[in-house]
Amino acid sequence: MSDTAHPPIVLLTDFGLQDGYVGVMKGVIAGIAPGVPVIDLSHEIPAQDIPSAAFLLETSWSYFPERSLFLAVVDPGVGSSRRGLGVRSHARFFIGPDNGILSGALDVDSEIRSIENAKLWLAEVSKTFHGRDIFAPVAAALATGTPFEQIGPLISDPIRREAPPPTHTSAGLVGQIVYVDRFGNLVTNFPPELLRDGETWAALTPDGAEWPFRGTYADTAPGERCAVVGGFRRIELSINRGSAAQVSGLGIGSAVLLRATSQ
Amino acid sequence: MSDTAHPPIVLLTDFGLQDGYVGVMKGVIAGIAPGVPVIDLSHEIPAQDIPSAAFLLETSWSYFPERSLFLAVVDPGVGSSRRGLGVRSHARFFIGPDNGILSGALDVDSEIRSIENAKLWLAEVSKTFHGRDIFAPVAAALATGTPFEQIGPLISDPIRREAPPPTHTSAGLVGQIVYVDRFGNLVTNFPPELLRDGETWAALTPDGAEWPFRGTYADTAPGERCAVVGGFRRIELSINRGSAAQVSGLGIGSAVLLRATSQ
Amino acid sequence: MSDTAHPPIVLLTDFGLQDGYVGVMKGVIAGIAPGVPVIDLSHEIPAQDIPSAAFLLETSWSYFPERSLFLAVVDPGVGSSRRGLGVRSHARFFIGPDNGILSGALDVDSEIRSIENAKLWLAEVSKTFHGRDIFAPVAAALATGTPFEQIGPLISDPIRREAPPPTHTSAGLVGQIVYVDRFGNLVTNFPPELLRDGETWAALTPDGAEWPFRGTYADTAPGERCAVVGGFRRIELSINRGSAAQVSGLGIGSAVLLRATSQ
Repeated sequence: MSDTAHPPIVLLTDFGLQDGYVGVMKGVIAGIAPGVPVIDLSHEIPAQDIPSAAFLLETSWSYFPERSLFLAVVDPGVGSSRRGLGVRSHARFFIGPDNGILSGALDVDSEIRSIENAKLWLAEVSKTFHGRDIFAPVAAALATGTPFEQIGPLISDPIRREAPPPTHTSAGLVGQIVYVDRFGNLVTNFPPELLRDGETWAALTPDGAEWPFRGTYADTAPGERCAVVGGFRRIELSINRGSAAQVSGLGIGSAVLLRATSQ
Repeated sequence: MSDTAHPPIVLLTDFGLQDGYVGVMKGVIAGIAPGVPVIDLSHEIPAQDIPSAAFLLETSWSYFPERSLFLAVVDPGVGSSRRGLGVRSHARFFIGPDNGILSGALDVDSEIRSIENAKLWLAEVSKTFHGRDIFAPVAAALATGTPFEQIGPLISDPIRREAPPPTHTSAGLVGQIVYVDRFGNLVTNFPPELLRDGETWAALTPDGAEWPFRGTYADTAPGERCAVVGGFRRIELSINRGSAAQVSGLGIGSAVLLRATSQ
Repeated sequence: MSDTAHPPIVLLTDFGLQDGYVGVMKGVIAGIAPGVPVIDLSHEIPAQDIPSAAFLLETSWSYFPERSLFLAVVDPGVGSSRRGLGVRSHARFFIGPDNGILSGALDVDSEIRSIENAKLWLAEVSKTFHGRDIFAPVAAALATGTPFEQIGPLISDPIRREAPPPTHTSAGLVGQIVYVDRFGNLVTNFPPELLRDGETWAALTPDGAEWPFRGTYADTAPGERCAVVGGFRRIELSINRGSAAQVSGLGIGSAVLLRATSQ
């Protein structure tokens, strides 16, 4: 709209919204980078659940404009010797602890730096809340034009946590559940590109259930199992008006087999 | 404040805040309409509860400035043949699926259009998340000055879902509960204008209970039933420091009789 | 960033996010003070829990830039004769009901005014939602440059609710639990300055448990009790990956003894 509008800083944490932690991070950002918009991606990541946060980041960043800054803080190791990372990748910036949460942002061209320049941090740094004291100020500094190289030195060994991609077997494609949403939908690591037009597919799970592929939720009856391409652009297993996670007992890490069905 | 400040885009969904769906919609908006503020009305509408969303929209829009854009997505029919609507009404814009959610925004002068111009949408449109792929881009386009008529053709038959207004009977005014808030307060469709000065009123419910009208919560003792004019500018049935919904067992659709008491 | 960027209006309420109350307050602000950013500190204060809101405000305001406006509404007395307050303190503004919620913002130099100038309010003022009808418009007016003295006359007797500071006894320092966060961490009123370098400390609680002081969560084993300097810059009692509140049965007001341990 406005030529001077800034790309947003996007927050992703497990802090919840009750205790003011997120609000205080925004206060720090407002002090350093006034006028820079802040968008909440989620603060309801289950406590310390790095894989779920990494999944949300991986499947969401492309919907934000170039030069967006992602600040992802699920940080069980806060106050220990774990590094903080800044990543320049996909024409965007990613800031967070070095524990795998940024895995989905990394590609072969990523510029990865260890956050070490304390001049960019708050004057007083706690041992329990680096989101406020280190990561938010660094993101705000970058948003105001601080050159990326000033945050700290290049590194090449960030911690990565990626679910293995689906593999072809004689039985079909084997993948896994990588995220469970709040409705109990079981999100797999199958991208929709795996589905070829004109073929009929179903997902099979270790509990013996079959989840036939449907175009959309509206094509299924209440209580019926189905597989759809969900909002994350991954195949997900759903029960219309029910919780697939509860009914099936499956969760993150459960295997899923995708195969063509007789017609 | 600033002459260049834009009216907000106001979001109302049942997506919750956990899974990043709302954040991603804001990312899409930030890419198309940078600098346009976004306000969350609610994302905690119970899943697929169109009447509650319609009630919030109907009772809230007047508090937002003119030219605000409301984006309301409770959308069980996503991916089916249901239409998407754009409404120009009350000097504001309303965008959402054609399932009754926008009913409270419609009046006799409303300009109603079917969202059909795919040039305004994301390049890739999913069958499960039109909030991100269609509605958010259309709202953002309107916020940047795209003429309203470009979203699609005029229509005259939107789906409407309005609770019938209260009716006069020999026993008194008969209305109904149209919303239950998170404290269990039972919100009726009686506007406060029905209360005449100098008369003493009480509400009666099918469980035999009487809810005497009070000026404010502070006029009631803990555990006491009362009827007050609540935050939605409707008469609501409350139990001080308790849940009227739980105690009474009443909910949306329950009848409420309003009548003058022998003072 | 931008020279014309405004300090934020910061919201703190017990309204929750479900029923649209917060969204409507933001709508009112957007109409009066377009372009002024709004930050949510918390809306998940337990209903009518003034002490928890006062604690969050007291421990958070310093992280926001000067000239920020805090709008704190936990208001069980709404519609009664309780006053509304505006406070100028710490180079910031604080708005809310006169029930102690603003205690942590008051110091000896504070300018305290009773909100009485109805010209700044919405035209129609309800008896149940002064957050929308009075406090939000007054905050928005101040954000747009309305002189502070216009909100109403000076007063000198605001209601204060402060937990007594820790006291020295022969057994050690005696303080209390003043806040419980959503993870069940028990936050005390001991500031970290009480801990002297080179000494080993532990907290003791009425249930007979000892909570040894640790630098950070990462120094404790799962299930282990510890005391750390938490995100609020207060000593808090935690159980790694557990709920200290649930395990101990302690809560707000429980006594905590801090003392040097052998070695």
